[in-house]
Amino acid sequence: MTDQYVTGIDIGGTNTMIGIVDRRGNIVERAKLSTTAFDAFDDFIKAIAETITDIACRKGINGQIRAIGVGAPCVNHINGVIEGAANLPWPSPLPLKEKLEKATGLSVYSANDANAAAIGEMTYGAAKGLKNFIVLTLGTGIGSGIVCDGHLLFGANGFAGELGHILIRKHNGRPCGCGRRGCLDTYCSARGVVRTAMELLDSGRYVSVLNALPRESITSKEIYEAAKDGDELALEVFRVTGELLGEACADFVAFSSPDAIILFGGVARAAEFFIEPMKESMERYMLHIYRHQVRILTSQLSESDSAILGASALGWEP
Amino acid sequence: MTDQYVTGIDIGGTNTMIGIVDRRGNIVERAKLSTTAFDAFDDFIKAIAETITDIACRKGINGQIRAIGVGAPCVNHINGVIEGAANLPWPSPLPLKEKLEKATGLSVYSANDANAAAIGEMTYGAAKGLKNFIVLTLGTGIGSGIVCDGHLLFGANGFAGELGHILIRKHNGRPCGCGRRGCLDTYCSARGVVRTAMELLDSGRYVSVLNALPRESITSKEIYEAAKDGDELALEVFRVTGELLGEACADFVAFSSPDAIILFGGVARAAEFFIEPMKESMERYMLHIYRHQVRILTSQLSESDSAILGASALGWEP
Repeated sequence: MTDQYVTGIDIGGTNTMIGIVDRRGNIVERAKLSTTAFDAFDDFIKAIAETITDIACRKGINGQIRAIGVGAPCVNHINGVIEGAANLPWPSPLPLKEKLEKATGLSVYSANDANAAAIGEMTYGAAKGLKNFIVLTLGTGIGSGIVCDGHLLFGANGFAGELGHILIRKHNGRPCGCGRRGCLDTYCSARGVVRTAMELLDSGRYVSVLNALPRESITSKEIYEAAKDGDELALEVFRVTGELLGEACADFVAFSSPDAIILFGGVARAAEFFIEPMKESMERYMLHIYRHQVRILTSQLSESDSAILGASALGWEP
Repeated sequence: MTDQYVTGIDIGGTNTMIGIVDRRGNIVERAKLSTTAFDAFDDFIKAIAETITDIACRKGINGQIRAIGVGAPCVNHINGVIEGAANLPWPSPLPLKEKLEKATGLSVYSANDANAAAIGEMTYGAAKGLKNFIVLTLGTGIGSGIVCDGHLLFGANGFAGELGHILIRKHNGRPCGCGRRGCLDTYCSARGVVRTAMELLDSGRYVSVLNALPRESITSKEIYEAAKDGDELALEVFRVTGELLGEACADFVAFSSPDAIILFGGVARAAEFFIEPMKESMERYMLHIYRHQVRILTSQLSESDSAILGASALGWEP
């Protein structure tokens, strides 16, 4: 009876979500901690351990948790150490796995959020039964998890699959936070979508509701809302985003020959406005031996649950 | 005693090389067939089977061959069928594995030549002991074999790793035989090197011994010879080739996080003239988390033996 549940934890810069998950992917109990409320990493770990015990007791399943899966930024999946995560309030390195195992007495498996999303999709979601797929997490930034021949790729340094930092524009590309120019991230992440909108607003070629908003306050969500209302500029933003995503994916396909590319995260919510130009562009740029074989899917995990589910799936893996 | 040797076969458009190989990677016997000398695929298969028996008898090791590994163009590694190989004289599909197993009574394992090269490097060559590397075969065209976390990637359709057809120039790229423009193949294969030389000759900016040759007869080998003599244009050709290879590899690294990129094939012979600009360019274009971790190596398999060895390594795999 000790293997009926896993705990999934998603550590974000603002909040940390904790959930207990059954084999079918139902979150049976959940809790939220404020990541920034803890001055010391040790206090944060202690609070996580106590929370897990509390919610397991509340549900009457204490002692039935098999393992803990954690999705966290910049974590090394082998040793479970977080290195250089700019969004977290404590100095690196943070020995997450070691400390959390000690505090809970449970095995801890960790991966960055995009890899956790890939395993989540394979365990409960759109990739169930697929052995070859790529998950693109289109959030504030772009992450990715690549599964090829049934294996999630980690590579030599554990950071295989940084597809947000493939150079889609080698000349005159947009400056990226990584210090280079032209990364996919700068065009197709939530921030990239906003940058595209700014460029189109600056062009003066569009009548748009977004023109009425203060520039610095425009978010990808507002562009999405405008697109839903048929705003010409907002629709063009997503068309351009789709074209660039498709162009990038054509090269990704030549690498790992996936059955599907699965879109996850905030920007994926607007897929209805960019999935057709994305498909068209991917097929156009793709080598003939892959054509008409690669599906583009959106995550089937419910938005509020996906981070916990993705992380929890790591706990079933070993 | 039946597992001391494997047979390696490299099927090329002109010649087919056959060798019997021991566990240490020594080719103990070898033979060559003219691929084009057989009107029917069945006759070709029959000749291969007879040749294997002949050379095994000559060495006194008939009955001690464990399996056959075949490197062939456009072969599906799962069912061993060759599909649409434009360089071979018989119409597709060619059920290579099925026919050769029947003719020899031995198990047959097949892969395209780039994947065979990757397994060859892992078994006997520069990648011995490495679990994460990419082999680029820089021949008439560019092929690749990707090993990540110890697995050779095949992907959904078996054709993972067509890195010669990554689009390195999305705008105004050179036309490629695949029907698109800007593929890496059109710049850094043997044919690509010749095209670069033609462009530089046409520019009229260089004094070069190549100016004295009839344009249509210039080969990558002649450009290499000129570079060895210090020819300014030939040296520039390889510098440009290295820069483009490095630029492409920076993106490949973000995909599978390799320890090494291993160069194989004719153009790799000229590595002395392009490996430094390639390294410099790869580091410059590469995301910081991979910097100074990826080695660029050249194949350690002797040129005349590498195709047979690469193919033979498939026979040890299962």
